[in-house]
Amino acid sequence: MNTSQLLCQNVHANRWENIAQNVRHEAKRSLLNYLAVGFAGAHDPTIEKLVKTYTKFSANQSASMIGRSERTDILNAAALNAMSANVFDYDDTHLRTVIHPTAPIAAALLAYAEVNQVSGRDFLQALILGMEVECRLGNAISPYHYNRGWHITSTCGALGAAIAVGWLLRLTPTQLNWALGGAANQACGIVETLGTMAKSLSVGNAARNGMLSALLAAQNFDGPLAPLDGVRGFLNVMGENPDLAGINAQFGEHWEMALNTYKPYPCGIVLNPVIEACLLLSARQDVAHNLKTRLQSVEVTGQKLLRDRTDRPGVQTGRESQVSAQHAVSVSLLSGRAGLAEFSDEAVQNPVNRALGEKVRFTVDDTLSIDAAKVTLHFLSEPSVTVFVEQARGSTGRPLTDQDLEQKFKELSTQADTGCDQEGLIRAVWEIESLDDAGALMTLVRQS
Amino acid sequence: MNTSQLLCQNVHANRWENIAQNVRHEAKRSLLNYLAVGFAGAHDPTIEKLVKTYTKFSANQSASMIGRSERTDILNAAALNAMSANVFDYDDTHLRTVIHPTAPIAAALLAYAEVNQVSGRDFLQALILGMEVECRLGNAISPYHYNRGWHITSTCGALGAAIAVGWLLRLTPTQLNWALGGAANQACGIVETLGTMAKSLSVGNAARNGMLSALLAAQNFDGPLAPLDGVRGFLNVMGENPDLAGINAQFGEHWEMALNTYKPYPCGIVLNPVIEACLLLSARQDVAHNLKTRLQSVEVTGQKLLRDRTDRPGVQTGRESQVSAQHAVSVSLLSGRAGLAEFSDEAVQNPVNRALGEKVRFTVDDTLSIDAAKVTLHFLSEPSVTVFVEQARGSTGRPLTDQDLEQKFKELSTQADTGCDQEGLIRAVWEIESLDDAGALMTLVRQS
Repeated sequence: MNTSQLLCQNVHANRWENIAQNVRHEAKRSLLNYLAVGFAGAHDPTIEKLVKTYTKFSANQSASMIGRSERTDILNAAALNAMSANVFDYDDTHLRTVIHPTAPIAAALLAYAEVNQVSGRDFLQALILGMEVECRLGNAISPYHYNRGWHITSTCGALGAAIAVGWLLRLTPTQLNWALGGAANQACGIVETLGTMAKSLSVGNAARNGMLSALLAAQNFDGPLAPLDGVRGFLNVMGENPDLAGINAQFGEHWEMALNTYKPYPCGIVLNPVIEACLLLSARQDVAHNLKTRLQSVEVTGQKLLRDRTDRPGVQTGRESQVSAQHAVSVSLLSGRAGLAEFSDEAVQNPVNRALGEKVRFTVDDTLSIDAAKVTLHFLSEPSVTVFVEQARGSTGRPLTDQDLEQKFKELSTQADTGCDQEGLIRAVWEIESLDDAGALMTLVRQS
Repeated sequence: MNTSQLLCQNVHANRWENIAQNVRHEAKRSLLNYLAVGFAGAHDPTIEKLVKTYTKFSANQSASMIGRSERTDILNAAALNAMSANVFDYDDTHLRTVIHPTAPIAAALLAYAEVNQVSGRDFLQALILGMEVECRLGNAISPYHYNRGWHITSTCGALGAAIAVGWLLRLTPTQLNWALGGAANQACGIVETLGTMAKSLSVGNAARNGMLSALLAAQNFDGPLAPLDGVRGFLNVMGENPDLAGINAQFGEHWEMALNTYKPYPCGIVLNPVIEACLLLSARQDVAHNLKTRLQSVEVTGQKLLRDRTDRPGVQTGRESQVSAQHAVSVSLLSGRAGLAEFSDEAVQNPVNRALGEKVRFTVDDTLSIDAAKVTLHFLSEPSVTVFVEQARGSTGRPLTDQDLEQKFKELSTQADTGCDQEGLIRAVWEIESLDDAGALMTLVRQS
């Protein structure tokens, strides 16, 4: 049996009873975070344009969009919801691969569940299996794959979505392998498009075409025997010396998807400790006063990678500001907040933010971990003030709590202003195994 | 200006008056061949399954399929017609890249033309420009790209389709570049899927997503500045040391698409001289008699590549038989024909064909060109008979004539049995510049 076949066998043989509680709970946390960021992206200009064009090619009105009132068919809904949840890169992160794992899988599954009876338990198991396959395949080709220029969320997402929907369709192992073949043949997405609207297309394709491949496989639409590990298969074409053994090692015991993390701020994750330090500084009475009158410079100390990725003065758009330490430092120090509004085009153009951003200096200290940073405010005729964050919120070692995730969900769904039943939704996610109809979640998140 | 921008500038600046007659004529030959092979694939089992699933996700009935009665929306029609024309690999070949250039471009353009007023002249110019960009991009990354495992028709086809439809939409050079960005981010297709149903998906995506990218670009859906030659752009991610200079060299003067070739037989093109020799042998009275009673072996002499690609005894399906010298030799010697019926599942299972196939032997002679082959029949107690084909029909040096293409069109459309007006269609293709409405072609090829 080749690696692809063994993987499909493993997925097919998985039993709910053997999935540990912490794994099930992590999937629910991923789902809650997914719905939160889906609300965040729902009315982004990129998504507005996509909805306008995609809904012209909609077969029916059977499926919903998070935070929007339009209805569309399940392929479009899968694509649009995945794109909406990912458009700000505010979604989750599997740190080893930098995959944003939930969006392509959950968007496909929820669209499917909206028109087919799917129990909450089956939904959660499908989500877990799809994310697991996605992350394990990502591991097998990392770091080469992303470094080469592949948008790993899009490519591995298509394969995970095919497995997730295929599992719900009760495909045989052979049919699951055909679904992988269809998805591997449609896997796409290049890093050059990051920061532009075009980037979203491949994220949407992952959800849409992963599901499509599963639907076709159910019709015995066949594919190659080794879509993953064949000589011209996914892992060899888009990877280099892929780690085949890891793909099936301890499948069902070790869960890669349970290592998922969630962002406290809508920014590049290397900025997490910097922003946290600035928020702590901003909350101090002594700092607030001196900030406006006596600040000479802000010294940001962290790994070289922090400087390489985020030393971006003078950014012009909200999108760019998400990876600018200058902007992140100034806006979080001045406003004491670091949400979507603080990384908008308006926030970037605010001259007060821009002025403070010019005072940011980097100091490289490679003895610090990537989760750590030190921020020092140097004042005129006043002692400097330093805050050191050893391990930022949102890292694997200091994950967002369930309450943090609930708070993130409430904030983002409130901003979307659809009047959804926030408490009811949060409860539905935590108790999803008890739902008879997982698709009902979409009724709760859509705009009526 | 980067390579992507210059390419879009060149496309935008192209004028009909500057396209030479032979180039226009080659585009018409490509179109006639496309329609012929579209008929051939229209009811293949792969296409039947695709039509069944894709039409469930059809927004409307505005567009047609070659040789079929269903109607669908333009994105689905683009995908389904491209897949139908390519499913047998009986379509055209740009030999330097092994791209089948017409299917993804013509399918997208005809779908667009069916719901928008497009003159025959504009249609032909868009087809020429789309194919040209497709083939030039293919040149820039060949032979690495296909050898790595990329299905080059699918990948470069998406970019060509974006340019072709974008040109019809009168996009600005900047918008054309955005369309390239959307298409580059959706370019997909791996060689592992060849010989399976899954292979068709990426061919359909090329037409569908190329068109979609152009439609989005018309809404100012933006993309990267250098979707092709950026560090993480199409050419660098899917190629290796791409030949950037060739992409724009002599654009509008040298036409790569005019080097297109057409297949006389529904097989791997390296079999062309072998089949031709067998057909010539089969027509000889002395051979026909001895073939059944005295044949000891069939010696096939050609380049090593011929043996490497086609030494496939005992194939089980029509699809496999397209690249089997054993089958091609036996069926063409015995029947005197080499059409679709001769490469069907039934023909493969015929025990008489299988028995003759077992007598095939290869002799390697690397002094022969890839267009040449020698076939020798060795008989019991009779002199051997040899036919040498120095340059096969269908090669660049001995292209199919217009009459050959008309004949191919008639045969394939007759087999499809839709009762289409063959003479009217052939005339419409040769005189396409005079049509006010290029979309009318689809009315002629669809089943009413």
